[in-house]
Amino acid sequence: MPIPDATLPVLDLGATSIDLTRQLCDIESVSGDEATIADAIQASLAGADHLEIIRDGDLIIARTNLGRAKRVVIAGHIDTVPINNNVPTRYERIDGVEYLWGRGTVDMKAGVAVQLKLAAELVAPSVDVTWIWYDHEEVSDSLNGLGRLARTRPEFLQGDFAILGEPSNSQIEGGCNGNLRIEVRAFGLRAHSARAWVGHNAIHDVAPILNTLANYVPREVEVDGLVYREGLNAVGISGGIAGNVIPDEAMVHINYRFAPSRSGDEAIAHMHELFDGFEITVVDLAQGARPGLDAPLAQNFLAAVGGEAKPKYGWTDVARFSALGTPAVNYGPGDPLKAHADDERVAVEQITSCENGLRTWLLADAPV
Amino acid sequence: MPIPDATLPVLDLGATSIDLTRQLCDIESVSGDEATIADAIQASLAGADHLEIIRDGDLIIARTNLGRAKRVVIAGHIDTVPINNNVPTRYERIDGVEYLWGRGTVDMKAGVAVQLKLAAELVAPSVDVTWIWYDHEEVSDSLNGLGRLARTRPEFLQGDFAILGEPSNSQIEGGCNGNLRIEVRAFGLRAHSARAWVGHNAIHDVAPILNTLANYVPREVEVDGLVYREGLNAVGISGGIAGNVIPDEAMVHINYRFAPSRSGDEAIAHMHELFDGFEITVVDLAQGARPGLDAPLAQNFLAAVGGEAKPKYGWTDVARFSALGTPAVNYGPGDPLKAHADDERVAVEQITSCENGLRTWLLADAPV
Repeated sequence: MPIPDATLPVLDLGATSIDLTRQLCDIESVSGDEATIADAIQASLAGADHLEIIRDGDLIIARTNLGRAKRVVIAGHIDTVPINNNVPTRYERIDGVEYLWGRGTVDMKAGVAVQLKLAAELVAPSVDVTWIWYDHEEVSDSLNGLGRLARTRPEFLQGDFAILGEPSNSQIEGGCNGNLRIEVRAFGLRAHSARAWVGHNAIHDVAPILNTLANYVPREVEVDGLVYREGLNAVGISGGIAGNVIPDEAMVHINYRFAPSRSGDEAIAHMHELFDGFEITVVDLAQGARPGLDAPLAQNFLAAVGGEAKPKYGWTDVARFSALGTPAVNYGPGDPLKAHADDERVAVEQITSCENGLRTWLLADAPV
Repeated sequence: MPIPDATLPVLDLGATSIDLTRQLCDIESVSGDEATIADAIQASLAGADHLEIIRDGDLIIARTNLGRAKRVVIAGHIDTVPINNNVPTRYERIDGVEYLWGRGTVDMKAGVAVQLKLAAELVAPSVDVTWIWYDHEEVSDSLNGLGRLARTRPEFLQGDFAILGEPSNSQIEGGCNGNLRIEVRAFGLRAHSARAWVGHNAIHDVAPILNTLANYVPREVEVDGLVYREGLNAVGISGGIAGNVIPDEAMVHINYRFAPSRSGDEAIAHMHELFDGFEITVVDLAQGARPGLDAPLAQNFLAAVGGEAKPKYGWTDVARFSALGTPAVNYGPGDPLKAHADDERVAVEQITSCENGLRTWLLADAPV
């Protein structure tokens, strides 16, 4: 029998999901530093005999094997963006609403707390459940724990339906927009700026690119009943050699968020259409994910949770499930506009509401 | 009697001005590292009893005190921009023209060689001459040796006329354009790029600035008989926080070269007129210099040298003389388009022609 590590923070899964959120947030776990929180989560499930536990780096899988007709994957990431004097957490009341304030409360330890509490509590859900808590969501795509699992052990992401606990105000947000980043370049000819007419100014040449961006009207596209709002923005611009040199190169870094009905290739083609004549380099491309709300389990989930499904604008890991053929939605406590904010805070009522929604659904009769 | 420094390169002022150029270029003297070349110049004049020698840092003044009615200041800088595998010098023949190739040949050791040779040779010029060879021309204005002298001992820059040996194809180039650099900024509101409509994109807002620059038609302005060509250019552009953030600030760095008939204040006012509504920060301002060709000595010089006077587009240290009331022109061997170039090279014929022009004038009867 292993000797318990006396220095490891102890998580009390019998506490309320609000208190459990607080316990999770007070274990700092900025991306790359998830070992302690992963160890604590694993230790907290030591007595849960209904769960098979699998550890992969700092990713933990806890799954039931009840022989149910359907399997649902429910996942959340355990890392946060860097702390900025916003740990430890505290409660605060604003305009009569009770909040838990601090790093990770929204993105997304409240979601993880709800999942972890229900994983331990629900010994006999109506569907088999694969719970996944993973590392490195807030950093480069190549480090993402769920992405690693999708590459090395994709069978764990497969199921009849998946729920990602990303903040969505405890409402169902379906699918996600795709995300393309490109660099658009103009080229000129260097010269001394005292004799500019000898050269050709590449910065002046990017004027049409900015005009196109400033005048662009993003589409609103209905996909499977949800309306996705697109976005086309310069997220960076650079050029210039010295204060007395006509620059021979200028670059606009552009981010295109596109509806999940458009493929990555179609998104790239649209950029070539808009910025015809300029050199275009694709920096990053993530396909979108259709909302998947036509899946029977999704309909059933929507009915159990109530409210109206909305589109998710930001790209999330639901697209990894989608790419493996598992319909997936976002469902978690917290306002996404407060994610990464220095005053990150979650309305505690949303934590309870999310917990109740998931519990009701997981105990209800599942569709066959 | 001081013991000569056996390690000091020896300059032979009896050689041709072409060979002397080569000797000067082969003493590396990138800005900040002028001590050796200054020591060598000072040592080479040790036997010139007609000259009073004054040393100020790495700046050397050599002047006659013959009691002439007029005094002329003739100056040149002894530093170069960084070397890029273009020292030592070599001769090369292109299309039947003989060149001396290498760093400093154009900017401006050929000019210094001509001046240094004539300083030693002309024991009885028709005007008193103050020769000045100075340091730190190719770097920040605050380090410029001639600027230092203008602040601390301005009397040395005063005279009836001044000639600066900057490359001008051994033709007289009068005055210089003024030089203004500004930063023009637009501001927005940060947001996650997945929900761009919550923010306001500052990069998109600089589109009108680039449109103004791209459509601007620079003036050609006649000043004292010479036509100055202006220039308005972006020399830098920046903005952006991260690939997923709507940027709240963008900046265009602009360089305005303006005719010497326009004051610095008028140049700034013109920028406010063009970029109305944007925040404008003045980074650097150097007044232009009128050509000063109406001075009797200038007319006399023009007649002696021959050819047609032209405007100088780039800002040069003639403006420092101009600011102290001394009319000044540029006159030196070398094509300014080859200054700072990796294939910097001077047509040797221009060195001889400049030497002959200056000698003829300095020996001719001076106007009273």
